[in-house]
Amino acid sequence: MDAAEFRKRGKEMVDYVADYLEKIEKRQVFPDVEPGYLRPLIAQCAPQDPESFEDVFKDIEKIIMPGVTHWHSPYFFAYFPAASSFPALLADMLCGGIGCVGFSWAASPACTELETVMLDWLGKMVNLPEEFLAGKDGKGGGVIQGSASEATLIALLAARTKTIRQVQSEKPELTEAEIMGRLVAYASDQFCATLGTTPCCSFDKLLELGPICNKENIWMHIDAAYAGSAFICPEFRHLLNGVEFADSFNFNPHKWLLVNFDCSAMWVKKRSDLIGAFKLEPLYLQHHHQESGLVTDYRHWQIPLGRRFRSLKLWFVLRMYGVKGLQEHIRKHIRLSHQFEHLVLQDERFEICAKVVLGLVCFRLKGSNELNEALLKSINDAKKIHLVPCHLREKFVLRFAICSRTVESTHIKFAWQHISQLATDLLKTWVQNHHQQ
Amino acid sequence: MDAAEFRKRGKEMVDYVADYLEKIEKRQVFPDVEPGYLRPLIAQCAPQDPESFEDVFKDIEKIIMPGVTHWHSPYFFAYFPAASSFPALLADMLCGGIGCVGFSWAASPACTELETVMLDWLGKMVNLPEEFLAGKDGKGGGVIQGSASEATLIALLAARTKTIRQVQSEKPELTEAEIMGRLVAYASDQFCATLGTTPCCSFDKLLELGPICNKENIWMHIDAAYAGSAFICPEFRHLLNGVEFADSFNFNPHKWLLVNFDCSAMWVKKRSDLIGAFKLEPLYLQHHHQESGLVTDYRHWQIPLGRRFRSLKLWFVLRMYGVKGLQEHIRKHIRLSHQFEHLVLQDERFEICAKVVLGLVCFRLKGSNELNEALLKSINDAKKIHLVPCHLREKFVLRFAICSRTVESTHIKFAWQHISQLATDLLKTWVQNHHQQ
Repeated sequence: MDAAEFRKRGKEMVDYVADYLEKIEKRQVFPDVEPGYLRPLIAQCAPQDPESFEDVFKDIEKIIMPGVTHWHSPYFFAYFPAASSFPALLADMLCGGIGCVGFSWAASPACTELETVMLDWLGKMVNLPEEFLAGKDGKGGGVIQGSASEATLIALLAARTKTIRQVQSEKPELTEAEIMGRLVAYASDQFCATLGTTPCCSFDKLLELGPICNKENIWMHIDAAYAGSAFICPEFRHLLNGVEFADSFNFNPHKWLLVNFDCSAMWVKKRSDLIGAFKLEPLYLQHHHQESGLVTDYRHWQIPLGRRFRSLKLWFVLRMYGVKGLQEHIRKHIRLSHQFEHLVLQDERFEICAKVVLGLVCFRLKGSNELNEALLKSINDAKKIHLVPCHLREKFVLRFAICSRTVESTHIKFAWQHISQLATDLLKTWVQNHHQQ
Repeated sequence: MDAAEFRKRGKEMVDYVADYLEKIEKRQVFPDVEPGYLRPLIAQCAPQDPESFEDVFKDIEKIIMPGVTHWHSPYFFAYFPAASSFPALLADMLCGGIGCVGFSWAASPACTELETVMLDWLGKMVNLPEEFLAGKDGKGGGVIQGSASEATLIALLAARTKTIRQVQSEKPELTEAEIMGRLVAYASDQFCATLGTTPCCSFDKLLELGPICNKENIWMHIDAAYAGSAFICPEFRHLLNGVEFADSFNFNPHKWLLVNFDCSAMWVKKRSDLIGAFKLEPLYLQHHHQESGLVTDYRHWQIPLGRRFRSLKLWFVLRMYGVKGLQEHIRKHIRLSHQFEHLVLQDERFEICAKVVLGLVCFRLKGSNELNEALLKSINDAKKIHLVPCHLREKFVLRFAICSRTVESTHIKFAWQHISQLATDLLKTWVQNHHQQ
């Protein structure tokens, strides 16, 4: 395919994506396929000779779409949102076109520098303490990781390296292995200090944890993967109070800030802590600017060597939505979760299982776990909406997460009526079958 | 931005990307900017109100492009290639549009199943032993990782977990920390068993290493990040002989197989070794198919939880190029590296420093490291082409890597004439200044 054909096919693909997202509501949110559906539809080997774009293109609807769970359907209420917006899609096209690999400043200065500045923008939007910002000569700064898991792993490894070096300087007779065997990482059952846990969007008490960590010289990493985006609204920023005690913090704009996956934003107070743990300097990656304090070589901040130009997505989204547009998006989602909460509360057969703080409602039928498992099964079997469950203190609970960028009040009402009707149907047979319970 | 505006802007972006790639040759391959260039060009904070697409779009040429190192310029001979092709760009647009997060089969069955089948296709293309393929009921299989570093880390962690469990079953009195302190990972100065090292594209002797690893029950991981793509050509497949002894193998189609970053292909003989090390099963990620042998939940195969629909890129590229088209691409690059090698060999001032096997030529002026450092500096200061160096046995060596998809014989000739002229200029002043050496 040459550039001329790409112009043609690229525009067809733009229309396909626009059509897909515009009409996504009409697709069944969860697919009908059974495991192994795809292999028989596809050749056993790659073709020897090139196939045409048309051949491939028509297989999208034939082979791919029947097996897609439509995360951007307004009837998708499962997991947490996966961010998506048109500005982010445009930025990703540009990112692919430039196709640079930004492991060092020299490998593409714009890729590194835009990332540093965008993470400062984003840090200011959530009102992070100055120490986390790079600025012109700060000691902290931000980086885009692929996922919160990666950010947590990085924080853990940096903390470990830092602690090992401290202990080694005090007790040089100990080997690294001996020290490692004695290190302790403290975590709750959701791991590390978390703002907005996945099962129920609960919040750790940073103002209690933070001073203890600081006093005991413990690295504190805060993961606010989902919830972090809400902190751009002043009325939710208090949930982040205590971040001033942390060594590292991250949240995922690719969850709730309209930046397509992947874009997990991580900040540290001391960039030297990361670089100390991961620095790698083969000659082919050295460049004559690297000793300058101005230069960031992001390969020292992450597990992979290579990295895409992901900050373009932040740049496009932050500018084309503006802070106000993004706040509106967050506030709409939270408004809708409270709408659903109120609908649940009006039905005395149901109970709310955790405080609704942001865009997640945990609810269940009053009754046994089996009953709620049956309700979830009937919801997901009907495939009109899609939810996933969680366990909260031994109880089987349904999670209703506001996900789609385009979800509106009418979809919430529809979802509730649907759930309510399925509950009525279920309870009817359930009472017949379990009348002695 | 709504779908209607996206249709318009998306098409403009397609044209911008097509223009960029079509005329990339006219851009200076390495930018003129100094560290810190970008921050003064950009606002200090994100805007409160939305900006227009036009505003953002015009800043691409004004702010971003002056700081881009053009990896796809045919004058770019640095590092290793970063793959890019039009079919991959189209697939990435689709991937962004679908925007699913494929951490489990249920999260988007197509995302998981296409990946499994594409890794089988790719595995067959490099003639991997059957054990590495998933097939319908194989014990092995492939996965797309973000980078070779991630694949190596995964292999290391899986090997460590496997060994710890073995030792624990034999000596239950040992703690995990005690066992860990005694574990040994064997590596050369390029780490693990490597096919096509970054400095000079050298190859470890798998047929010698493999049997020892198997006999001593050592996990063997083979990293062929760059070189692996060449194994789709029968005449280079012998370089992979010995893979049958390995536990895991990976190479990066995002380097040399025209699949845009990121797409690092990794295979294991026993998927249970990975799943055993990384399995995580919170309720909200469980689904009723997961006990079926047919189902793969890729979150157990990797560090991150989330994952994009990256196999679409493989599907588009493998079909639209066909195996023959991709072989042609590899063979062209290798032909061009030999062309450059011959040009170097005809000039007795220069020497070739490592056997040219694939698309990398390591060369230098006969003489001191300082002389070669000066030559590289004059090449990169002129900014007509871009190279990076390496160290081979204490010697400072210039790496000439064939990178761009569109590089042709004329670019190689130009590059050599340019280098040769700069060497002549340099040697003139060098002899004057260093005549006593």
